[in-house]
Amino acid sequence: MSLVAPTVIQKVSGETLTEVPDLLAVEEPLEIRLGFGPIDNRQQKPVSVTMRTPGNDEELAMGFLFTEGIIHQPADIISCRHCVQDAEKEGNVLRVELKPDVVVDWSRLERNTFTSSSCGLCGKATIEAVRALTPGPLASDFTVEVSILHSLSERVRETQLAFAYTGGIHAAALFDANGKLLLVREDIGRHNALDKLIGAAFWQNWLPLSQFGIFLSGRIGVELVQKSWMAGVPLLAAVGAPSSLAVQMAREAQLTLAGFVRNDRFNLYSEPARVRITQLA
Amino acid sequence: MSLVAPTVIQKVSGETLTEVPDLLAVEEPLEIRLGFGPIDNRQQKPVSVTMRTPGNDEELAMGFLFTEGIIHQPADIISCRHCVQDAEKEGNVLRVELKPDVVVDWSRLERNTFTSSSCGLCGKATIEAVRALTPGPLASDFTVEVSILHSLSERVRETQLAFAYTGGIHAAALFDANGKLLLVREDIGRHNALDKLIGAAFWQNWLPLSQFGIFLSGRIGVELVQKSWMAGVPLLAAVGAPSSLAVQMAREAQLTLAGFVRNDRFNLYSEPARVRITQLA
Repeated sequence: MSLVAPTVIQKVSGETLTEVPDLLAVEEPLEIRLGFGPIDNRQQKPVSVTMRTPGNDEELAMGFLFTEGIIHQPADIISCRHCVQDAEKEGNVLRVELKPDVVVDWSRLERNTFTSSSCGLCGKATIEAVRALTPGPLASDFTVEVSILHSLSERVRETQLAFAYTGGIHAAALFDANGKLLLVREDIGRHNALDKLIGAAFWQNWLPLSQFGIFLSGRIGVELVQKSWMAGVPLLAAVGAPSSLAVQMAREAQLTLAGFVRNDRFNLYSEPARVRITQLA
Repeated sequence: MSLVAPTVIQKVSGETLTEVPDLLAVEEPLEIRLGFGPIDNRQQKPVSVTMRTPGNDEELAMGFLFTEGIIHQPADIISCRHCVQDAEKEGNVLRVELKPDVVVDWSRLERNTFTSSSCGLCGKATIEAVRALTPGPLASDFTVEVSILHSLSERVRETQLAFAYTGGIHAAALFDANGKLLLVREDIGRHNALDKLIGAAFWQNWLPLSQFGIFLSGRIGVELVQKSWMAGVPLLAAVGAPSSLAVQMAREAQLTLAGFVRNDRFNLYSEPARVRITQLA
């Protein structure tokens, strides 16, 4: 599987039409199946299907399962691999085998897959449901120079091969206090890009990510703040706008939220003290 | 409820920080509940929870239920209103009462809500599942002048009050062969904006929309092509990039798909003949 797929398109500029080759961001479904229960009586259950860009599927699964509160540490997992039984599904089914002693809260998982990451029926309930899964507000002493935030958008874009070809892929990047980019993951869905990033960090036992920031290429819905909070990230910076609920949750989590991060400007919606800045207007 | 919520933020420009009032795009969960069955033995079942921007919730519900193949015509519905029993949930539960003779395919609905609009486990299965719900490829003789597509982005933006304030809201717009904008709907989620638009047209008995085009402010995932195909729309134009699967489905549906529609340019991925253009390079 590839991040991009070739095609032929008609390019229109003003009144002129030209036929040219082009590359598209690949989108395919991925089903995540859990194998669980005692060794002599294993069971399996599909827990999620998401439209994603193929690649780093194991990280996507681990990031999803961790940020949904299903798994807590790499040792919870026996194995994580694509099913090979069904050739029709072409690498689109990933089976995660849990250790026999891992107890899954199915009620929570069903509510979650049912509701596309919404946990309650008002913003307050949504935030409370996530808070119950975390150790509480983030107390990290992580700070970052303002100039590092200004530089992120361009530096992440430079690493994004698939975006350069297709113009249609989101990125999530992990950076440290010096602005060094440690991981970048791409996907057609911004929540998948973040799941891949958190899943990669999870598998390397880096969690909680209390000395790192995350940069996202898109807008910030509440589920992206939720995932970052679960991973213990004290700073989330994004090119796009945050929603009202994303800002509420970031304030509850004491997570620094920066939006519209581009062209040497950005907005801070919460915990501004983590950004070191010299001048105050 | 309002589309926007006031807050106070720190605005950073270069090395300077200023505290200013700002407006955020509102995001709240909406649960859609179906009331169904014989009059003397009514039942109800929640079928979806989505994070959405409040407003036009009835249209959102009808657009969702129609594009998922649950309802087929306005006459399938007895009523559609917010539950008022639970004050906690603050207008976030909408109950749709179906006529007693409307038969719901629960297996399809469960698969769908479970899978976030993915119907199969490979792109081919996804397309086949949608095709089964439609009358087949779109045969509309609808055409549009190239200059109308060039003008859409700016004209839709002018109507978008909430975007102007927040920079964080998607739009879906319905236009006719003369480029006249008939409906514009906004939401933090692009699929919700499209559901609201299609739901509004559905309720006015305008479906199938065979003499209209739809303009979207974001990127084009397969679920947006799916919804447009269900509504019988022969042309979909968007500011962003389409995915590989979106292009595959548009070609299967014989739906004209235009991407990167901005700055007097765009790309055509399928059925280019519906765009009237004078010069060929």
